[in-house]
Amino acid sequence: MRWTAEGDVAGDVRERGFEVDVAGRTVPGVLWVPESGTGPRPLVLLGHGATRHKRVDYLVALGRRLASDHGFAVAAIDGPGHGDRRAPGHDDDIALFSAFLAEWSREGTVDDMVADWQATIDALRALDDVGDGPIGYWGLSMGTIYGVPLVAAEPRIQVAVFGLMGLLGPTRDRMAADAASISCPVMFLQQWDDSLIPRPEAFGLFDAFSSVDKRLHAHPGDHSAVPVEEILFSARFLARHLAPHAVDAM
Amino acid sequence: MRWTAEGDVAGDVRERGFEVDVAGRTVPGVLWVPESGTGPRPLVLLGHGATRHKRVDYLVALGRRLASDHGFAVAAIDGPGHGDRRAPGHDDDIALFSAFLAEWSREGTVDDMVADWQATIDALRALDDVGDGPIGYWGLSMGTIYGVPLVAAEPRIQVAVFGLMGLLGPTRDRMAADAASISCPVMFLQQWDDSLIPRPEAFGLFDAFSSVDKRLHAHPGDHSAVPVEEILFSARFLARHLAPHAVDAM
Repeated sequence: MRWTAEGDVAGDVRERGFEVDVAGRTVPGVLWVPESGTGPRPLVLLGHGATRHKRVDYLVALGRRLASDHGFAVAAIDGPGHGDRRAPGHDDDIALFSAFLAEWSREGTVDDMVADWQATIDALRALDDVGDGPIGYWGLSMGTIYGVPLVAAEPRIQVAVFGLMGLLGPTRDRMAADAASISCPVMFLQQWDDSLIPRPEAFGLFDAFSSVDKRLHAHPGDHSAVPVEEILFSARFLARHLAPHAVDAM
Repeated sequence: MRWTAEGDVAGDVRERGFEVDVAGRTVPGVLWVPESGTGPRPLVLLGHGATRHKRVDYLVALGRRLASDHGFAVAAIDGPGHGDRRAPGHDDDIALFSAFLAEWSREGTVDDMVADWQATIDALRALDDVGDGPIGYWGLSMGTIYGVPLVAAEPRIQVAVFGLMGLLGPTRDRMAADAASISCPVMFLQQWDDSLIPRPEAFGLFDAFSSVDKRLHAHPGDHSAVPVEEILFSARFLARHLAPHAVDAM
């Protein structure tokens, strides 16, 4: 693991860029940690959506909030073909979405991304100011495509926020099987008028989770219109499960 | 309006029983108001489910909470054939559910119940410690059957919590039309494995509301397994809209 950038300090929260090497790949990531306190503390992993990257605005806001309000460590990494892993010339949404579809269809992408996250987890937990606390996962849309296999493979992850996805696409069967093996608390976000994800397929994915504590929150609007309120609620949902004695019951 | 019972004071909240006369009917109700402060203040109307009554445990808890935490006035009335309006001998759930189905099928029941609520609203708002503040409605299952027509008919009601119901039963068409005329903020609670309300009919009712600010919260479990957490969230949802300057953004 290498530090690549010493980022801003906002309030008490320091942002740092890092790289982790995995099986010949370099995984670029970003870490938010409060400067006060020390590890072990809960770690939240953030998975971005297709065409976005590890520092897309909603992840930066969520990372800073989870670190500042709850004292958590928070990390995001670029997905395959995204952010600092873009192919040369892939600079617009159409090229990036095509790259996403190609990656999603490629045999091995899901396993590679799970390995990327697991190497990132191992590297971060070796840091004194992160340590070996409980882990949560947050990822919508493409963040759910790669997050469901990760959470299924990772017993260290104890709570997850998914959504904007359904049982569809090239990894549909694997997603169903992985979801069925997930039993940690799950919050599932749905956009009621999502033009990319039909309702029945979204319901199918929500149904597939084995979790006793699972909930579906749906709002009107298209794929990317998730209300800020639900992002804030999802942060509290993670906090409630990762630091149950520090957060009130609501 | 007559006071029928001087109930307990729990904390700062006084409970009183009342009766209102409407078109030859006597409507039995209960009112929770904080002893501190005075009107006008927000008023929340609570509609109970089939076979239950105005003082069923979850309504008493919700009424006391809305009064104590938010300073609201809160009222519940017995539905047709329920509580103090039961027919002689209707003392078990089977008799009460049969009476509910008969009332639901009777031409005029919905209009009568809307009139009962409206007379109750008028009587309560004439009280100094209630006054003419904004009004919210909360009612699941049978509380939605009668609540949707009430909220559609009552411009003074500015926010509503519905759920455990769908576009079905003898008033299905009216429910669809009434829901379409509702545009206030709506929170809709659904039980994902509700054996009484099929998912498509529940989605149909949620779809029918014209509200821009509407949300569906779904949890696993059968009809009556709504998590306490969602009851608490619904109280905050009401408070956020009835007293927006007194409640934080979440």
